[in-house]
Amino acid sequence: MSLAGHVDRLRSGDQDLDGLGESMHAAMARLYPICRSITGDGVRATLDILGESLAIQRHAVPSGAQAFDWTVPDEWNVRDAYIADRRGLRVVDFRRHNLHLVGYSVPVRATMTLDELRPHLHTRPDQPEWIPYRTTYYHRDWGFCLPDSQLRSMDEGPYDVVIDTTIVPGELTYGELVVPGDSTDEVVVSAHLCHPSLANDNLAGIAVATELARTLTSLAKRRHTYRFLFAPGTIGSITWLSRNADVLPRIRHGLVLTGLGGPGGLVYKRSRRGTRGIDRAAAHVVAGRGGEVRDYSPYGYDERQFNSIGFDLPFGRLSRTPHGEYPEYHTSADDLSFVKPSQLAESYLAVLEIVDVLENDERYENLSPHGEPQLGKRGLYPTTGGRAADEAVMAMLWALAYSDGSTSLLDIASVAGVDFAGLRRAAGHLEAAGLMAPAR
Amino acid sequence: MSLAGHVDRLRSGDQDLDGLGESMHAAMARLYPICRSITGDGVRATLDILGESLAIQRHAVPSGAQAFDWTVPDEWNVRDAYIADRRGLRVVDFRRHNLHLVGYSVPVRATMTLDELRPHLHTRPDQPEWIPYRTTYYHRDWGFCLPDSQLRSMDEGPYDVVIDTTIVPGELTYGELVVPGDSTDEVVVSAHLCHPSLANDNLAGIAVATELARTLTSLAKRRHTYRFLFAPGTIGSITWLSRNADVLPRIRHGLVLTGLGGPGGLVYKRSRRGTRGIDRAAAHVVAGRGGEVRDYSPYGYDERQFNSIGFDLPFGRLSRTPHGEYPEYHTSADDLSFVKPSQLAESYLAVLEIVDVLENDERYENLSPHGEPQLGKRGLYPTTGGRAADEAVMAMLWALAYSDGSTSLLDIASVAGVDFAGLRRAAGHLEAAGLMAPAR
Amino acid sequence: MSLAGHVDRLRSGDQDLDGLGESMHAAMARLYPICRSITGDGVRATLDILGESLAIQRHAVPSGAQAFDWTVPDEWNVRDAYIADRRGLRVVDFRRHNLHLVGYSVPVRATMTLDELRPHLHTRPDQPEWIPYRTTYYHRDWGFCLPDSQLRSMDEGPYDVVIDTTIVPGELTYGELVVPGDSTDEVVVSAHLCHPSLANDNLAGIAVATELARTLTSLAKRRHTYRFLFAPGTIGSITWLSRNADVLPRIRHGLVLTGLGGPGGLVYKRSRRGTRGIDRAAAHVVAGRGGEVRDYSPYGYDERQFNSIGFDLPFGRLSRTPHGEYPEYHTSADDLSFVKPSQLAESYLAVLEIVDVLENDERYENLSPHGEPQLGKRGLYPTTGGRAADEAVMAMLWALAYSDGSTSLLDIASVAGVDFAGLRRAAGHLEAAGLMAPAR
Repeated sequence: MSLAGHVDRLRSGDQDLDGLGESMHAAMARLYPICRSITGDGVRATLDILGESLAIQRHAVPSGAQAFDWTVPDEWNVRDAYIADRRGLRVVDFRRHNLHLVGYSVPVRATMTLDELRPHLHTRPDQPEWIPYRTTYYHRDWGFCLPDSQLRSMDEGPYDVVIDTTIVPGELTYGELVVPGDSTDEVVVSAHLCHPSLANDNLAGIAVATELARTLTSLAKRRHTYRFLFAPGTIGSITWLSRNADVLPRIRHGLVLTGLGGPGGLVYKRSRRGTRGIDRAAAHVVAGRGGEVRDYSPYGYDERQFNSIGFDLPFGRLSRTPHGEYPEYHTSADDLSFVKPSQLAESYLAVLEIVDVLENDERYENLSPHGEPQLGKRGLYPTTGGRAADEAVMAMLWALAYSDGSTSLLDIASVAGVDFAGLRRAAGHLEAAGLMAPAR
Repeated sequence: MSLAGHVDRLRSGDQDLDGLGESMHAAMARLYPICRSITGDGVRATLDILGESLAIQRHAVPSGAQAFDWTVPDEWNVRDAYIADRRGLRVVDFRRHNLHLVGYSVPVRATMTLDELRPHLHTRPDQPEWIPYRTTYYHRDWGFCLPDSQLRSMDEGPYDVVIDTTIVPGELTYGELVVPGDSTDEVVVSAHLCHPSLANDNLAGIAVATELARTLTSLAKRRHTYRFLFAPGTIGSITWLSRNADVLPRIRHGLVLTGLGGPGGLVYKRSRRGTRGIDRAAAHVVAGRGGEVRDYSPYGYDERQFNSIGFDLPFGRLSRTPHGEYPEYHTSADDLSFVKPSQLAESYLAVLEIVDVLENDERYENLSPHGEPQLGKRGLYPTTGGRAADEAVMAMLWALAYSDGSTSLLDIASVAGVDFAGLRRAAGHLEAAGLMAPAR
Repeated sequence: MSLAGHVDRLRSGDQDLDGLGESMHAAMARLYPICRSITGDGVRATLDILGESLAIQRHAVPSGAQAFDWTVPDEWNVRDAYIADRRGLRVVDFRRHNLHLVGYSVPVRATMTLDELRPHLHTRPDQPEWIPYRTTYYHRDWGFCLPDSQLRSMDEGPYDVVIDTTIVPGELTYGELVVPGDSTDEVVVSAHLCHPSLANDNLAGIAVATELARTLTSLAKRRHTYRFLFAPGTIGSITWLSRNADVLPRIRHGLVLTGLGGPGGLVYKRSRRGTRGIDRAAAHVVAGRGGEVRDYSPYGYDERQFNSIGFDLPFGRLSRTPHGEYPEYHTSADDLSFVKPSQLAESYLAVLEIVDVLENDERYENLSPHGEPQLGKRGLYPTTGGRAADEAVMAMLWALAYSDGSTSLLDIASVAGVDFAGLRRAAGHLEAAGLMAPAR
């Protein structure tokens, strides 16, 4: 099937969108328990699972390697971490939830009173039942995260504090999948994989990206080459950028996928320049789904790196309600129950529609441009006059009215306020009737 | 009198606008009973009446003639058409209302039960007392239109069905009037005349167009040449376009007039490009009258043909509430009582104001550009200071502030949010005082 | 201290803004009783007082001198003016309020009934307790202004009418102060000083302008040269323009200050072109303070003259609620109690912020443009990850994301919707850290 066919079947209900959402959610469930960070075993375990259905290439960059202004850090792994009370009871235990341990905590083995411990304990008093997510990647420190209600119930101790971690030279690991197309022009899809047991941020992005990768791989052909990156945030994308100078000039469009299973409508964040092809394609799709389109800001996910002045790549970002705007963000409440299969499914379809635009936007030439062609004699128009035109006829009229050889279907969709996919089908009918042809 | 004088007198109340509305309505009343279609005697009878006060040239194009993608159809005429019950009573009778017969119905003489008839009967269940308007120009078929309430009261029959029509080679007829001006640059005004007994659509457009033609003919001089087209919709305009290739390059502005006597405010529909001179002139006038300005869409009236890519002519469309947006549209309820003289009159004045802009928009040069000229010593400014400026003074200040030789009065009107006619008068006063001159 | 330091101290509360408002109000109180007009002793007395703390240069242009379309009028001075009843009681007395006498009234000594007087009496029936402000500069006439309630209580008279004024050849006087900068590029600040006892219009503008002049004079250096004009409205600015042809090409920015102590938020009126540097700077500051930015119109204060086509200078106007939009405008109710120190203070700070933009807007170049630089290792970023960035960090991220050498801080502030002063401070931190440098 063609990509357009995939889109049309999912939109018409001929293919089961709900089932797709359930299967993406199930894929997330396997990845959820793994303790990921910007380096370490969790990243590799995650890539192992993704690699079961996709030929993802794994890259390892040694600690100490330079990536522009950054240095690949030592690798961090956790064997155990807990705070135990006088009776030996683990009151805070990494094995119960990996958010309990501040990411990149250094090894500790000590007995401390609560007062001594307190500077190392992180809670969210405004959300007293949730464990916050904290890291200390580039500053040697340690700490535990716990519900504020639990902290308030703890006595003075003393407590046994054990952090059995290693921070030693190792590697930064990331995955990459290239799906070749007719052209070497690339579309890059990036989803960060450094977050531990947080579902929406970003197992949801990873689930949508892998589903898209599977669909694109299944096609007989693609216009563009597609490159998928599964890398830790910031250091991962900067490292990739530092080692792929030859790829960068071929990138035509980029999309960062994150937070695609949580609440709220779709939100597209424009590239820094704001007027790139990906911006127009995504804005059309997201607006058509009642979502929101926002201007670039230099805070968020890896769009920050791709859009930085030295690279200036056309990367937008697709999410649902963005980071920091839902209370569950960066807490233990961002769990599997927080992510809805139906939201994942709509997100996936939106991404597919964006790719449909990137693959199938064409400039056509109206071959019967002097007045309207007589659609009726070609069976494309209702025979009884006096009534209003239906949606399919309107799409043909829009396509004919604006297809001057230099105006693309997406241009027309924007002017007309009609759907790209409908216009694409209308163009197909008109081409079949000999009334339009792709512009030379 | 000058065109500006006509506008100023009607706006100031010095000339009776209401009387003008009544006289346009009376003109419509004569045309209303005639059964028009895209060909036939009704078109010629209509042009006969219009020709009584205007030197309209009549053109005939034979059936079978080619016009781009279209072929001039056989000519259709009706002698009689009815459905009679067993007692010979005509329950549906073309002679009572010409909307009862589907336009271009082929001859029929048959006895049929209601069930056999039903596929040929058209009603509007949502408007059960009104007769809908239906046609079958390019597909040989037949039918009757009737109120849904009547259909529901009819028994099983059988009925005598008689359609005494002819569809035979003949001609397509349209009228054309050229009012020459100082320049061969043309303004084209088009009003379709193919609709039978429907008042707003489009006897109202025809009434406004003929009134405008009479006014322009009465002027001593005009800047532009004006061309009026009274032609059947779609096939008429396409046929005209196919036979006037020499005229097309001279067309500077075009306006389709339709639905100008019905309810609601003025609605201007922009040309396809949306930034033509007619778009700016009409948008200014319509916005100033609290009306609405809409972007082009490829559905509606003959603006579709003039704006098609092969011609790309700068045609906008002026109406009140457009087709399909009032319930009476294309039904017997679009009758003479539906069209109000006051609405016709305002529409006519708006058209005249648009023509005022086309004729009188000028670029001026401020001859006293260093600071404000002292208007007071020329009697153009109130002598007592301290109070706010009135509208006439403000118009002069706007004209002086922006007349740099390359900014036209309409440009200034748009920036200032003031009325073109007021600015035109201000420019006249300033020119008389030697403070401004038309730009070289 | 630098200008930026002044701004930052006032914004942070390190310097007492309220005290500044009180001191500007006190300065206005000294000037309030003086009877000013477009010429005469009052103008000179006002300049005397302003000259106590600023080295204002006084210019005198003789009556009869030509200034483009205008002629410097004879000088007007008032010794006395009153209307006395039969018992000799002064019922209307210039000595009680200088608004009682119409500006430029010719000498009169007569006995008149109320009916004879009435054409010379001006009131505001809609504001019956207030004295209106009226002038008759360029038309020899005379009159009195009084509360409408008083007029309605006056009997038929007769009255002794005395106007002891002189209108004789003299001079037009205006003040000018030039504060030199590193560049001869000029910023001109203009405040009209022709209004008699009216506080907001325009002692408020004069107070803010003189406070600004004092601050700029106190700086060790300035990028631009600053020129302050204290001149009568219309004839004053036109006369200045006629005598400073050599200065005009050096003017980069201009600001008319008026009505800065009255009610309502800040209102910036754009220059005629609307896209000048001053327009961008002032719009940013005023929008950031919740104020309003309006397009140019050719009515108001001396922005009319500076923006006229022959000069086309980039002058905007800053006020609070503009002339004619508050009921007290041009009446005796525009008194010292109408002007609030807090409003004066905010207006002054806004002007200072605008000047901060004019002085300190720079284009920077990001020296670490490949991905985000690692702010953490330079102590510019919080060490614990997982939480949202604060305002100061965001300002640095915005500066880094857009500083490509051709985008200025103000450009970035507009795109980012962040504060210029915050961005200026962020740029300072980044420059100190070696991450940015002024563009070559």
